[in-house]
Amino acid sequence: MKNRKPTIKDIARRLDISVSTVSRALRNADDINPVTKRKVLELAEKIGYKKSVLAAGLASKKSFLIGVIIPEITVPFFGNVIIGIEEFLKPLGYDLIILHSDENVTNESECIDLLMDRQVDGIMISLSMNTKNDDHLKRAMEQEIPVVIFDRYLPDSILPIPRVIIDDFDAGYQATTHLINKGYKRIAFITGPVDMFISQQRQEGYIRAMERNGRSTSADLIVPATDLRRSVGTALDKLMVLKDKPDAILAFNDPIAFKLMRLLHKRDIKIPKEVAVMGISGDAMGELFYPSLTTISQPAKDMGYWAANLLKDRMDAMKKAKDDGKVFIPMSIQKILPIKLIEREST
Amino acid sequence: MKNRKPTIKDIARRLDISVSTVSRALRNADDINPVTKRKVLELAEKIGYKKSVLAAGLASKKSFLIGVIIPEITVPFFGNVIIGIEEFLKPLGYDLIILHSDENVTNESECIDLLMDRQVDGIMISLSMNTKNDDHLKRAMEQEIPVVIFDRYLPDSILPIPRVIIDDFDAGYQATTHLINKGYKRIAFITGPVDMFISQQRQEGYIRAMERNGRSTSADLIVPATDLRRSVGTALDKLMVLKDKPDAILAFNDPIAFKLMRLLHKRDIKIPKEVAVMGISGDAMGELFYPSLTTISQPAKDMGYWAANLLKDRMDAMKKAKDDGKVFIPMSIQKILPIKLIEREST
Repeated sequence: MKNRKPTIKDIARRLDISVSTVSRALRNADDINPVTKRKVLELAEKIGYKKSVLAAGLASKKSFLIGVIIPEITVPFFGNVIIGIEEFLKPLGYDLIILHSDENVTNESECIDLLMDRQVDGIMISLSMNTKNDDHLKRAMEQEIPVVIFDRYLPDSILPIPRVIIDDFDAGYQATTHLINKGYKRIAFITGPVDMFISQQRQEGYIRAMERNGRSTSADLIVPATDLRRSVGTALDKLMVLKDKPDAILAFNDPIAFKLMRLLHKRDIKIPKEVAVMGISGDAMGELFYPSLTTISQPAKDMGYWAANLLKDRMDAMKKAKDDGKVFIPMSIQKILPIKLIEREST
Repeated sequence: MKNRKPTIKDIARRLDISVSTVSRALRNADDINPVTKRKVLELAEKIGYKKSVLAAGLASKKSFLIGVIIPEITVPFFGNVIIGIEEFLKPLGYDLIILHSDENVTNESECIDLLMDRQVDGIMISLSMNTKNDDHLKRAMEQEIPVVIFDRYLPDSILPIPRVIIDDFDAGYQATTHLINKGYKRIAFITGPVDMFISQQRQEGYIRAMERNGRSTSADLIVPATDLRRSVGTALDKLMVLKDKPDAILAFNDPIAFKLMRLLHKRDIKIPKEVAVMGISGDAMGELFYPSLTTISQPAKDMGYWAANLLKDRMDAMKKAKDDGKVFIPMSIQKILPIKLIEREST
């Protein structure tokens, strides 16, 4: 009993009245004896009874639910983003409905419908690798549900959606510069799917860093892992048949780098002696690999925290406009988080 | 527009009537012109308007929300369990509120309160590593919220809660038998926290397998990783100062095994030549490590699917009892899922 939260039933039992009487008293109904009503309210206060979130939500027309859509549920990076989101939103009384698109835009669109159906107060999303348009996000915004994007976004979207991202160009640039500074001569890049924006950005960063350092970037050193993980083998094959093989490989992200290291081990190619490997993500797992993975760390938790922050701002601004009888004019906001080189053994 | 879900506003616009009229027509109110009502219902049918889940839920007193509490949000095993849960519950119209306790019973208890507050239709939970009593689960059951446990449970709980587990004794037994069959002589076991039930079970299985094969199990070969991950180094230290060092180490779970492999690499101890390593979990990541990790695979997705299945059974049974005016008498149900040895390079 000691840990139990007081309920409406406790009040009814202690005053020896019906649950419905208590309920009517709590919602301040008229058809109830004023003495009873006072007794109920006093006891509720005394034992610390709290109205349910749902009831509070119905009164304020808020659900206090925030929908979070991530591309994959088994990737630790997104788990850490969620921890950051919770850190910001939980103290404010919001709960999360977490959904995942499984890297598929059709699922993603269904997730949006589901969240609209749930009347969430806001939506936070990182786009799937094959999301090419934002009709589904527009749909949510038309229903006046604020949307915030984190990590993966559409660069050419004209929807005024706040987003929290890293500078992916800079991630590619810094990673490549690190490899150049370590003395590697032929640096290859395994990209993500070719039409994935953040992959393109990292690739641009790679190319720029190579050029700035007087390196030629032949097209055959840039190969895609078209479906992120399963195709890493094909990508590596393409690099290893080159006459001039790479002595370092930068991977679009850490999961690709992990897979790559495994394939190199299998071929008995020593890391980093024969081929250095570097990732971009900063997964904690990279520390446990052998050799441990050099990477560019993205601040996952901060990303979640900031995205939640921007969502709250947007919700507040929309409410204020409504209260003031004004039209809310949404604007794009872009928060770029700093990245960090984590040098380990693989380079 | 083409992808947008029809709303009550669309109906109002197309019939040139107010949203509140549409709303009254849809909920079959009396204070509305019958002709208008018919027009609204016909158009709603025609354009495929669907009542919101929330509205449907309010009518049926169901929220169609299921709460899922996992110990850690960044562990892929639990991500896969969630995929299995969704596979079963999504087609039935349920959505999940996913929460994590961060391996802490106080958080876990708060998660339960939060879900009760949200009036979820059911709760699915895997207990934190320091959960020692089930007062919080009892609290939910007192509110007639069905609860189902998966993976981590309290063996001596008398609460009639269905659970889906693996045979942890057998997992320890099969793992140890594999190591014995491979010819390892001194097999050590790094356990989880000493009072964690599933760890105790795996340890019992280890001891039994050793005894059945005529091996002595000296106490110094069994060392705990008291907080699961950070203390693996201490555990390994204890084994490596033994006069008779182990030639194989079984880890309570894969994450501990990953950490262990890393520490062995650091000490330049060859795996499996000098010390074999084996885990229990079946994390996909184990395949990418070098050497890849031999493990006992737990069917994470099936576990989620079955847990959801049992929850649905329980919800249906409770509803039926209520409809029949009978008292529902809950019973414990234990579904044990088969495990599988996955032999890789580390043994």
